[in-house]
Amino acid sequence: MIAPAPKSRPGRIVIEGVQPSLDGGRHAPKVTSGDRVTISATVIRDGHETIRAVLRHRAPDASGWTEVPMREAPGTDRWSAEITPVALGRHEFTIEAWTDRFASWREEMSRRVDGGQADLTSELLDGAAIVDAAVRRLRGDDKTLAKRAVAAIQGDAPQPDRLAAALDGTLAAAMEEHAERAERTRSDLSPLDVDRERATFGAWYELFPRSWGGFAGIERELPRFAELGFDVLYLPPIHPIGTTHRKGRNNTLTAKPGDPGSPWAIGGADGGHTAIHPELGTVDDFDRLVAAAAEHGIELALDLAIQCSPDHPWLAEHPEWFHHRPDGSLKYAENPPKKYQDIYNVNFDTAHWRALWEEIRAVVLHWCGHGVRIFRVDNPHTKPLGFWAWLIGTVRGEFPDAVFLAEAFTRPSMMYELGKVGFSQSYTYFTWRNTRIELEEYLTELSRPDVASFFRPNLFANTPDILHEYLQTGGPAAFAARLVLAATLGPSYGIYSGFEHFERAAVRRGSEEYLDSEKYEAKRRRLDGPLLDLVGKVNAIRRSHPALHRTGPLRFLETENTDLIAYAKGSVDDTVLVVVNLHPKTRQVGLVHVPADVGLPERFQVTDLLTAGIYDWHAGGNYVGLDPGASHIFTVRG
Amino acid sequence: MIAPAPKSRPGRIVIEGVQPSLDGGRHAPKVTSGDRVTISATVIRDGHETIRAVLRHRAPDASGWTEVPMREAPGTDRWSAEITPVALGRHEFTIEAWTDRFASWREEMSRRVDGGQADLTSELLDGAAIVDAAVRRLRGDDKTLAKRAVAAIQGDAPQPDRLAAALDGTLAAAMEEHAERAERTRSDLSPLDVDRERATFGAWYELFPRSWGGFAGIERELPRFAELGFDVLYLPPIHPIGTTHRKGRNNTLTAKPGDPGSPWAIGGADGGHTAIHPELGTVDDFDRLVAAAAEHGIELALDLAIQCSPDHPWLAEHPEWFHHRPDGSLKYAENPPKKYQDIYNVNFDTAHWRALWEEIRAVVLHWCGHGVRIFRVDNPHTKPLGFWAWLIGTVRGEFPDAVFLAEAFTRPSMMYELGKVGFSQSYTYFTWRNTRIELEEYLTELSRPDVASFFRPNLFANTPDILHEYLQTGGPAAFAARLVLAATLGPSYGIYSGFEHFERAAVRRGSEEYLDSEKYEAKRRRLDGPLLDLVGKVNAIRRSHPALHRTGPLRFLETENTDLIAYAKGSVDDTVLVVVNLHPKTRQVGLVHVPADVGLPERFQVTDLLTAGIYDWHAGGNYVGLDPGASHIFTVRG
Repeated sequence: MIAPAPKSRPGRIVIEGVQPSLDGGRHAPKVTSGDRVTISATVIRDGHETIRAVLRHRAPDASGWTEVPMREAPGTDRWSAEITPVALGRHEFTIEAWTDRFASWREEMSRRVDGGQADLTSELLDGAAIVDAAVRRLRGDDKTLAKRAVAAIQGDAPQPDRLAAALDGTLAAAMEEHAERAERTRSDLSPLDVDRERATFGAWYELFPRSWGGFAGIERELPRFAELGFDVLYLPPIHPIGTTHRKGRNNTLTAKPGDPGSPWAIGGADGGHTAIHPELGTVDDFDRLVAAAAEHGIELALDLAIQCSPDHPWLAEHPEWFHHRPDGSLKYAENPPKKYQDIYNVNFDTAHWRALWEEIRAVVLHWCGHGVRIFRVDNPHTKPLGFWAWLIGTVRGEFPDAVFLAEAFTRPSMMYELGKVGFSQSYTYFTWRNTRIELEEYLTELSRPDVASFFRPNLFANTPDILHEYLQTGGPAAFAARLVLAATLGPSYGIYSGFEHFERAAVRRGSEEYLDSEKYEAKRRRLDGPLLDLVGKVNAIRRSHPALHRTGPLRFLETENTDLIAYAKGSVDDTVLVVVNLHPKTRQVGLVHVPADVGLPERFQVTDLLTAGIYDWHAGGNYVGLDPGASHIFTVRG
Repeated sequence: MIAPAPKSRPGRIVIEGVQPSLDGGRHAPKVTSGDRVTISATVIRDGHETIRAVLRHRAPDASGWTEVPMREAPGTDRWSAEITPVALGRHEFTIEAWTDRFASWREEMSRRVDGGQADLTSELLDGAAIVDAAVRRLRGDDKTLAKRAVAAIQGDAPQPDRLAAALDGTLAAAMEEHAERAERTRSDLSPLDVDRERATFGAWYELFPRSWGGFAGIERELPRFAELGFDVLYLPPIHPIGTTHRKGRNNTLTAKPGDPGSPWAIGGADGGHTAIHPELGTVDDFDRLVAAAAEHGIELALDLAIQCSPDHPWLAEHPEWFHHRPDGSLKYAENPPKKYQDIYNVNFDTAHWRALWEEIRAVVLHWCGHGVRIFRVDNPHTKPLGFWAWLIGTVRGEFPDAVFLAEAFTRPSMMYELGKVGFSQSYTYFTWRNTRIELEEYLTELSRPDVASFFRPNLFANTPDILHEYLQTGGPAAFAARLVLAATLGPSYGIYSGFEHFERAAVRRGSEEYLDSEKYEAKRRRLDGPLLDLVGKVNAIRRSHPALHRTGPLRFLETENTDLIAYAKGSVDDTVLVVVNLHPKTRQVGLVHVPADVGLPERFQVTDLLTAGIYDWHAGGNYVGLDPGASHIFTVRG
């Protein structure tokens, strides 16, 4: 026996292909507060009725829904509306569509009139009935208007007069505004995450506080950091460091007296993840640094590394959170054949996972309580994705301005998934993309709108772990080129201390580790490297050019020279053209081809924001010659 | 107060981006029975554990699930498996992934050994514990093997012997086969519709039975239709035709005595959608025609037009299924200013919609009962999408070999949506795509895998409603060119009677309607047109070349002449190269460029399947000269 018809009738209108959308609604696309967002969908109904659609959206904690009319790109069934969400946190939206009975009738009526139909008696009565049904819904002037219209349409005036009353524009407007929303259909609720500007755009500087005289030392340098245009100072873990199995200089297994250990070996007699290493300062010193930085428009980013030294209080208080060996002893971290004898990982498989999750979140909330809103998360790809979704989701529920940077150097799918589950931004493969084709392919991918909707790059030019061969062998020119690339290709970028001094000695040939790595010893650092002049200029250019505040639009340009890279960033409002000599040893010349479809005029003037040089450019090839380490950052005047 | 950790722990493994998938699983992608289907997904887990994944799929009415191992493209987290579904109807699949504890341990152990770790005592015990836990699950030889392995690993033999026992390949295979599927995760159930070959590939011929001597006359021509290689004979409605407001010849409002009326004005004194027009034959005649056609490998396709003449029995029996005017009278069909006085549409908004839906389905099932499995549905875009989803879904539940062709000439999104809700194939814009660029753009879109997964084209070269200007003015050469294009670009294609006679008189200048349209009068037809020789050749070529059985792969080739179109269809197993002179009046010459990446050898021989001519071709430009109406259909020999 074949099944009967369903009990309830399916909706007549179908809404498909809602954008933005991530994995069928399982994840929330990201936007930046204040950015204009186009929301669109295909809205289809059988037949020839007039359809209306609105976007309904709700900011976090808003009491109700806001409706924005949507418009169809004629003949496409594709409807869209633009909104500019500002409130931080998880927004929701849905698309609601309905059949406008009166507009449908009116449009059909117009076609009858145009077609020369003589007798419209019956059709006029149809229209009057629709208006009559609406009278109850209407109020005030609209109600009076509608009542009068019904009387006029049904009256015994000549047909042209009744027709005029029926097709009256004021009536149509009132009827549209108060339409009954027949056959109303809504799309599934779609999430949208709104982050603040700093989640997308910012200049970062990484420093080990112990090399700068602790918190007080950093505080003294704040004016200079501000002057150079840095937005974020990222501090590796500031917590007490374990002494058991402490690593010595250059990652040796036995520390000598006075060796400070790796800051990532977190926890000791003075406490764990919520404590401060006594040599850096007190809690008050830290709070003062946060406040002083804020006065300079600078934020601190703390490191969240979920791992413990053998001396971390959790090991004694919560042995159930750790891996045990068959003999009952705790198991240190390893990724064979590598061993990290100074570190114990927590065991996310523990039966006591709920307490563990909550304790880690308590760490984050603790530092939020001290004014920190940016967390650089160490190796998130070795902890459960579901944990991150929960941690970031609930922390941002309390602190919607919280920003999480994923330090995951792993396979692309995992790096993307971390973005999808909530990380605000991510480290990238940028350090390993040094040739023109590598950079073009990689940044083209990252600037694609579908990728940019969940993965925001932070292009670090170096890190304490990554000193690329290009820098090791390229010398100062390589540093200058990489700085300009990072700062103009990435809305967020960063350098780690020493970059400005062209520090480039590797621990051994073929390694990307620094010789005498700061991870295992303190340096004596000041903000006085020779590259800082360029850093300051580049940061100033970044701030004043919206084209550099987002990953895209980005378009690479042909140069007829594989050692010259060129790209156009931004759109009509602000276009920046960048040309970088990738060869750190020799001058390069080429022709930068400006395609006709890139949105620039046939002829235009470019001003080099680094040198103030002015050039006449045009669609087609434009001659460029750059010495090693030199770049152009052009702004365009039409 | 911030919310505590969730009660249950989210799955450790994440499965994303399952393919094939349509609109996040809301619709079922289509495949053709016997085609190989690749099913893939991104499977991610934090950390370095060894993951396994299987595809679980279930054919309609199958009692259980079949598992197929999936393989990862190394380093991509992208897993895939291939299946070849055969059973017709709605299949389901899910991807299941788990952590293989023993394989993870074994892989890590190998890294320890390679890294030169000396003492493996503790790690061997870890491995023994995993094997020991598996002993309970194992049976027979595997159980004995595992028991012995545990004893050997835990024993007091020298470490190399214990290690050898632990890493033994037979043990590894048994452990993998009977893994406990730790952290098992499954993707949401995904649907997959499997249709028979004819839903995708077939040569159609449309004929009005009344012009061929009714069912008996068609039966006499069956051997010739079969000889010409037709697979489907599509008959416009075969039901009684109303007399009230019957249309006369050339769509005049008043029929003269003897005018037969439009077959789409369905229903009269002799019955409605389940009755047969007495002049065509009896039910027995129809059944005999169906059976005789089947013997010739030919199927009949019936027209499903949900509309009624004023004399249809439904109007008296079910006035509640129709639109009423304010004065209570029934409302005929119109799309102002067009009026269809001989037709009443049913009202899908009726409160009695369930009875209406079931009655329409009963019509379809009635003809299924008479051996019909192909339905050409008239104007489906003016009936609710939800109705079609239900109708096609439930009919195919009973008759999974049922095929539905959508006759929707409307906006692209609606045509695509009809494919998504279940139509097996669709009419297209092909008749209006006549220039090289039009054809290239349109067929490139239709052959894209994502479109082909729900929209299967049936390229009709003409219809009773569409006689394109290209045919009207191009003469026989235009007909020949369009035949070859339709038959080689579309796995399904069709012609309507008269095409083979080059019939091309329009009712008036600028109209696509035929003069003396067969919709309103009977003709005297026989299968003897001058184009049939080419039709027979083309149909034979189609049958013997798998490259022409699917919409893609399709690649258009440069010709250096906009009046010469060239394309490569198929893949390594079978490649067909087609070149058509689009200019119906003058000879065209050009160079067909075979790109290096199209999968053909540097030099190869092509044989023209139409003329048996043999030519030496090569990567790069190949000279071609074609008279008006001439084409090459080359098969390639390496």
